[in-house]
Amino acid sequence: MSGSTFGSIFKISTFGESHGEGIGVIIDGVPSGIKIDATFIQSELDRRKPGQSKYTTSRNEADTAEILSGVFEGISTGTPIAIVIKNTNQHSKDYSNVATAYRPGHADFSFDSKYGCRDYRGGGRSSGRETAARVAAGAIAKLILREFNITVQAGALSIGNIEATKINFDEVEQSLVRSLDLSTSDAMAAEIANASASNDSVGGQVLCHITGVPAGLGEPVFDKYDALLAQGIISLGAVKSIEFGLGTKFAKLRGSQSNDPMGEGKKFLTNNAGGILGGISTGEEILFSLTVKPTPSISMEQNTSNQNGQAVKLKITGRHDPCIVPRIIPVVEAMAAIVTADLLLRQRSSRI
Amino acid sequence: MSGSTFGSIFKISTFGESHGEGIGVIIDGVPSGIKIDATFIQSELDRRKPGQSKYTTSRNEADTAEILSGVFEGISTGTPIAIVIKNTNQHSKDYSNVATAYRPGHADFSFDSKYGCRDYRGGGRSSGRETAARVAAGAIAKLILREFNITVQAGALSIGNIEATKINFDEVEQSLVRSLDLSTSDAMAAEIANASASNDSVGGQVLCHITGVPAGLGEPVFDKYDALLAQGIISLGAVKSIEFGLGTKFAKLRGSQSNDPMGEGKKFLTNNAGGILGGISTGEEILFSLTVKPTPSISMEQNTSNQNGQAVKLKITGRHDPCIVPRIIPVVEAMAAIVTADLLLRQRSSRI
Amino acid sequence: MSGSTFGSIFKISTFGESHGEGIGVIIDGVPSGIKIDATFIQSELDRRKPGQSKYTTSRNEADTAEILSGVFEGISTGTPIAIVIKNTNQHSKDYSNVATAYRPGHADFSFDSKYGCRDYRGGGRSSGRETAARVAAGAIAKLILREFNITVQAGALSIGNIEATKINFDEVEQSLVRSLDLSTSDAMAAEIANASASNDSVGGQVLCHITGVPAGLGEPVFDKYDALLAQGIISLGAVKSIEFGLGTKFAKLRGSQSNDPMGEGKKFLTNNAGGILGGISTGEEILFSLTVKPTPSISMEQNTSNQNGQAVKLKITGRHDPCIVPRIIPVVEAMAAIVTADLLLRQRSSRI
Amino acid sequence: MSGSTFGSIFKISTFGESHGEGIGVIIDGVPSGIKIDATFIQSELDRRKPGQSKYTTSRNEADTAEILSGVFEGISTGTPIAIVIKNTNQHSKDYSNVATAYRPGHADFSFDSKYGCRDYRGGGRSSGRETAARVAAGAIAKLILREFNITVQAGALSIGNIEATKINFDEVEQSLVRSLDLSTSDAMAAEIANASASNDSVGGQVLCHITGVPAGLGEPVFDKYDALLAQGIISLGAVKSIEFGLGTKFAKLRGSQSNDPMGEGKKFLTNNAGGILGGISTGEEILFSLTVKPTPSISMEQNTSNQNGQAVKLKITGRHDPCIVPRIIPVVEAMAAIVTADLLLRQRSSRI
Repeated sequence: MSGSTFGSIFKISTFGESHGEGIGVIIDGVPSGIKIDATFIQSELDRRKPGQSKYTTSRNEADTAEILSGVFEGISTGTPIAIVIKNTNQHSKDYSNVATAYRPGHADFSFDSKYGCRDYRGGGRSSGRETAARVAAGAIAKLILREFNITVQAGALSIGNIEATKINFDEVEQSLVRSLDLSTSDAMAAEIANASASNDSVGGQVLCHITGVPAGLGEPVFDKYDALLAQGIISLGAVKSIEFGLGTKFAKLRGSQSNDPMGEGKKFLTNNAGGILGGISTGEEILFSLTVKPTPSISMEQNTSNQNGQAVKLKITGRHDPCIVPRIIPVVEAMAAIVTADLLLRQRSSRI
Repeated sequence: MSGSTFGSIFKISTFGESHGEGIGVIIDGVPSGIKIDATFIQSELDRRKPGQSKYTTSRNEADTAEILSGVFEGISTGTPIAIVIKNTNQHSKDYSNVATAYRPGHADFSFDSKYGCRDYRGGGRSSGRETAARVAAGAIAKLILREFNITVQAGALSIGNIEATKINFDEVEQSLVRSLDLSTSDAMAAEIANASASNDSVGGQVLCHITGVPAGLGEPVFDKYDALLAQGIISLGAVKSIEFGLGTKFAKLRGSQSNDPMGEGKKFLTNNAGGILGGISTGEEILFSLTVKPTPSISMEQNTSNQNGQAVKLKITGRHDPCIVPRIIPVVEAMAAIVTADLLLRQRSSRI
Repeated sequence: MSGSTFGSIFKISTFGESHGEGIGVIIDGVPSGIKIDATFIQSELDRRKPGQSKYTTSRNEADTAEILSGVFEGISTGTPIAIVIKNTNQHSKDYSNVATAYRPGHADFSFDSKYGCRDYRGGGRSSGRETAARVAAGAIAKLILREFNITVQAGALSIGNIEATKINFDEVEQSLVRSLDLSTSDAMAAEIANASASNDSVGGQVLCHITGVPAGLGEPVFDKYDALLAQGIISLGAVKSIEFGLGTKFAKLRGSQSNDPMGEGKKFLTNNAGGILGGISTGEEILFSLTVKPTPSISMEQNTSNQNGQAVKLKITGRHDPCIVPRIIPVVEAMAAIVTADLLLRQRSSRI
Repeated sequence: MSGSTFGSIFKISTFGESHGEGIGVIIDGVPSGIKIDATFIQSELDRRKPGQSKYTTSRNEADTAEILSGVFEGISTGTPIAIVIKNTNQHSKDYSNVATAYRPGHADFSFDSKYGCRDYRGGGRSSGRETAARVAAGAIAKLILREFNITVQAGALSIGNIEATKINFDEVEQSLVRSLDLSTSDAMAAEIANASASNDSVGGQVLCHITGVPAGLGEPVFDKYDALLAQGIISLGAVKSIEFGLGTKFAKLRGSQSNDPMGEGKKFLTNNAGGILGGISTGEEILFSLTVKPTPSISMEQNTSNQNGQAVKLKITGRHDPCIVPRIIPVVEAMAAIVTADLLLRQRSSRI
């Protein structure tokens, strides 16, 4: 059943497989009157695209965004904006080893179980390539948020055993690993290089903040701001956890330590909650972090099963990121922007 | 905008405030032919209801489920099942202190910011009381899952500084704190008692597993099994994190350590992923954990602001759980059951 | 699968069977700040309720609306408004004749085919009684529209062979048959009385107009204003057609006759389209009409089949409207109001 | 707000303007295992494409369907199928006359009122060209229905004053006007030619039937089979009415005349209802008809207003169908197929 649509008013529907003709997205619900900056959209895709450095896959895909609709004379018209990204660099390689064997840590077996078949070339629909469509949609969301001075930024909190020792979102784009702490970026890069050298991969954590969000966004009960962020972020294949504000640290705290007191002028004195209370924004900075698992594709030989149930050895060849963290960062931002733009528009009908 | 509906085929819509006439839920999409065991529904509500022990609020609400529709001669007819739970024990107390002052850690300020007004009695719609409707719906979901031998169980992984040292879901209902490890339940109870004695509250962590889930549930991209669980669980007001399988531990691991290899007969040799790959169930046990923040309502005096922006001191009186963990456990199970029942029905249209 | 929810922002979910405990509705997405006039809601239900006159069924149901949530101190809070109407006058009569035999013109056979079972008492979920929940929701919608000076009125265009010779919406409530033309109301009443006297029933047509609608409501493509009205109106069990503006008359016209020219000041010189062009309101009066089939329940003996496939004779006893037109009029208004309120709120996000 | 998505399980999202880069559709929820016959999809588009004869516009657009995803080795994989149709024959003509003046009978004024701007080239999003995306999606729906021996066919019931005197769906494709009665096709063609010769256009009526539908499709209350057909069909810009079975004729009938009695073996003896009772299919042929308004674009001079509110004269130049009926027929079939495929898949979760 259809699960490729996300959002209520700002609603995106994506399509596409890793090695099909192309991937893309329809973004419906964009208000009219937004300047659609195609250069910005492309620059966001470029932040995610493969082949940026030795810390990312060497697959070299141009990832050119083609806008097919919804924009007239550079301005959104209110009708759906369709963006297509053609696949241009699919290797016509031999997929026979993965056509029948299930790659460990990938969705091969679960897809087969679901559909009775799958497009095994590069993971098909379950490939991380699918996220390029999200980034294109996220760029449109950011263009909306820009009108309200809302910004979304993410960066690497840790890679393997190396953790950022301070948080500075403005340093993120200064290193190839996108560390929140430029002083740890070399060590993070080494962590990736080491994993890669041993035909392995490594995980990490990402922190994201959203600034400028007015108090009042998010819907009570099921469509809480944090609940929708959780759906959006956990829907990224490699993400295995999400936490808000103090997150897991809340478990050991007392209410007197974790509550955010307020003072004069409705100002919050702390922001342990991460900018959301009862699922609704408080006007403080939204803060959440997430765990990225090590890339499941590794070059060393692994034990697995094939579709006939036979135990087999599998060596995955080809080009793969040894660490997903650097390239997932723009994707995390995209999902956060999409959720925020949607809630911003939903908020318009909260009062008569 | 309407955010009180959850699910695609098995779809629930809830209503109700803490101190209004009542709360309830419409459960649409229940297939015909299910035996609707009213005693079971009530027993699930009883697991969540207040006043169960000294570790929970002394508010004594009967929480009687009244089924208004969708059931004929004890069997579901396929039409919506409406369940209403009347509020019977609202204290007609003086709310003047919280009517204008924002309780720290609660949604008072964010609701006011959103709607320009709020039902301040007991937190209104943002009260944890809302979750009784989810438990009623979850009981219906469990009745569906029972037909497929799928079970959902949760328990306390930690309370404050006390952590379970082993995991046994069958021990959960043997202690008032619902510890996964009966041998730690007294220490957990003491942790709650200590917090309570100092007019404070305490947080903790909950683990949930779902067994018997066939491989193939969950939809690619946005409606992944884990993504919908994340939305459902994070939509519980007190929950601040969720993680799947090894969760945050993935950050420091290598792919060779975290991938789940398979062997003969398509058997997984490990289950680090927590039963979900690419958002689709693998047939292994689904495992996720979550962090519950300390109850924001505490008896000690706190700094806050009132709706005129003046800094004020606030002492919250009345009956409150010193720890949310024991009572949230049936709610977590309910949300997990609701998501699973929905995906089970969605799966029916995945193949021709 | 769940089909009991209607609307995008102003979203209603209904439940209930004719002879169950009660029926009702959750209205989610009502903006905060609306005065919820309970007397008005009840008066709308009274316009629909059975037993109003000899031209309607003598079933005497009080249809008392009980508001359970979403209203605080008489004002909407932005959270879901739940309204329950208990069933109070179910005859504990013998249903054995309809328990197994399919009533012609009713949904008995189709429900059985769908679900393999049905609540046969009074038609269960397919009973016209279900529309009381729509009227309650429609009353809330009208309270929203009132803030924008939008009004919705419907009346009888024809009953059997008697047609209104003029259209005056203000005369509608002056006759029991709710004729748009008071001078034809006696003849319409006679048409009903004649049908009733011969153990039969009779059909008719209804006209509805919506005034004060600003230009710009309705969404391009699938959620056109007229498309959503069509869904809402045709979803009433007895309605077999809907037409907009000149409706079926367009078939024989030329474009030069049917186009609505405009003049000075963007004024339309005619309104053949019925106030909607390209699915979006033009600022002119919205006009649509519909056909109501004769009540399928008639007292004369009919040929039918029972659930074992045997041909049987069936005489439907009990209380039934000989003509649905008078009582469907407030229901038509309700659906038109619900669609309009939803589109009014959706419109708020059409421009940045 | 997003109104470009239709359907629940079989869900389509369309995009595109008349004179933009292209139009297209994402079809999500297609079960895996369907043979995707690209030749059939193209043949359906060819039935709708402009330039087929002198009775249709001479705009000569190839309308080539490009499938970008969701199909592997000719078989659906269960993931979204995206189809793009590039616009290839946009005249780079001077649009200055319609850029500011509102074309009577078109959505120009209502779009401007909604969005404050519009893509005026060829009507932009409100152009009938949008329906090519529906036809592509409808072709996929037909491929699903084919697996269940369900067929959808439509034809011209009348054009202007010429009405078919018999109904034969198999004659439809034998005449350029697609008459249900080949013996009237010349007269219908003359009706179009006459309108065209006088710089005018003409309306008509279309009849559609769906055969092979099992009893039980359609959801009670809002998502009735006929209600969804009504939304789908009325969402076609030129359609001004829809009726089911005897339709408007029900108004003058008695229940004893219009009810469909049943006989031995649960067989219906008549099908006045048009194959749907209580919104659920009865197993009989589904029958509905609709009215198509005269093409609003006519060559003769018309009175209108420009966007500054000045009264102006407008002559619409360019290529336009003098009658929409022949080309809307495959579009009507597409919408009927889309609704039916969706309900067929929804039906899979009606029983445990």
